[in-house]
Amino acid sequence: MTEEKKAQPIERVSVIVSKGSLEGVYPGLIMANGARMEGIEASLFFTFFGMDAIIRKRLDHLKVATVGNPGMHMPTLLGALPGMSAFATAMMKREMKRLDIPPVGEFLQMFHDAGGEIYACKASVDMFHLGKEDFSPLVDDIITVGEFYEKSAGAQIIFT
Amino acid sequence: MTEEKKAQPIERVSVIVSKGSLEGVYPGLIMANGARMEGIEASLFFTFFGMDAIIRKRLDHLKVATVGNPGMHMPTLLGALPGMSAFATAMMKREMKRLDIPPVGEFLQMFHDAGGEIYACKASVDMFHLGKEDFSPLVDDIITVGEFYEKSAGAQIIFT
Amino acid sequence: MTEEKKAQPIERVSVIVSKGSLEGVYPGLIMANGARMEGIEASLFFTFFGMDAIIRKRLDHLKVATVGNPGMHMPTLLGALPGMSAFATAMMKREMKRLDIPPVGEFLQMFHDAGGEIYACKASVDMFHLGKEDFSPLVDDIITVGEFYEKSAGAQIIFT
Repeated sequence: MTEEKKAQPIERVSVIVSKGSLEGVYPGLIMANGARMEGIEASLFFTFFGMDAIIRKRLDHLKVATVGNPGMHMPTLLGALPGMSAFATAMMKREMKRLDIPPVGEFLQMFHDAGGEIYACKASVDMFHLGKEDFSPLVDDIITVGEFYEKSAGAQIIFT
Repeated sequence: MTEEKKAQPIERVSVIVSKGSLEGVYPGLIMANGARMEGIEASLFFTFFGMDAIIRKRLDHLKVATVGNPGMHMPTLLGALPGMSAFATAMMKREMKRLDIPPVGEFLQMFHDAGGEIYACKASVDMFHLGKEDFSPLVDDIITVGEFYEKSAGAQIIFT
Repeated sequence: MTEEKKAQPIERVSVIVSKGSLEGVYPGLIMANGARMEGIEASLFFTFFGMDAIIRKRLDHLKVATVGNPGMHMPTLLGALPGMSAFATAMMKREMKRLDIPPVGEFLQMFHDAGGEIYACKASVDMFHLGKEDFSPLVDDIITVGEFYEKSAGAQIIFT
């Protein structure tokens, strides 16, 4: 117990979001926002498919993956039916609303208003032929992996 | 070499388990348990679908995902056949038994007996309408993301 | 700002690669290599399906997963068609070539030449019945989770 008191508290987190599904994006948002609410410095770095969460036209249309995830408790062939992803997505969104977990766009706004930083990964931006105009205006900058490490001084890096 | 000797050894890890498939849960269990066996303080924090690993009725019935994972080296349509996940699951369990890697329930017990802490994520518990009675009695507490950060003072956070 | 200057810069990263698809392997390679290019010490630790990236016969034949990833923006049943994974893989490889991101084999060579360390996870090696001869000669050693923690003294652990 005394040992735990001497331990260095978490002072900064750099959360990487790399997956584009609804259940792939939320854990990172929740980890980053939960940090801010504790007074911990926090930044979000979106890369690969995770960038969908900051692309203006996509961020409020993310879907739940209904195949490839036994946690859904759904037979694979059923999960592959055209309407199932939309159905699971609607269900998860309803549950999150009940818990006051906001939709992605509002969540980013809340995080940013609380002093959180939001970055897109330059290599991914180039790979998917995107430009600054494709992103939410909340994105502070498009940065390289090297710059990400510089900004992560003193931080715990959390890859989601 | 001398530099490496001066480097701060890992003294505590906080391992987050977020995926519900068998191959999604084991890496986190192995990382956390491997830490304890080295004398490193360790806690497990189960969130989203990863909670299946601590839900009493589910923890010994986790399955391998046979689609959405090219690492399985199985054509997608073959992987989607009803029996394939059960087949791959049986194979992985047999291999793990051969290596003395215990089933999930025993693994949690071994980790807990060795002083490891086990937590469930409050937001996920609420989202999936669960209560304390649904969980393995080894779960020490249901905690918020903020409490997770407090308990992670001095720790490496590992999100799996 | 002055606070940020006092923060401890990232001096070492231990990147774990646990997924076998092309989009599962590259984030870890990019994080580890990006660290080396910034003068940060870096090691790669391949475990579970991520080992495909260092298995001699597989490392240049990794594929993109076209199901189970809504980020692909492809209907599940379409993604399950036999040719779709090969098609998405060819597209991603072309984009990466355009950005001078090398194929997996060359990427590992570049990382290793720059002083990066490459390890395979002993438990996974045993589980999949592999031997040293199955791996790229760039693999420095097959190590246990305990040894991984020892080598990670002073490092940020990044699980991908």
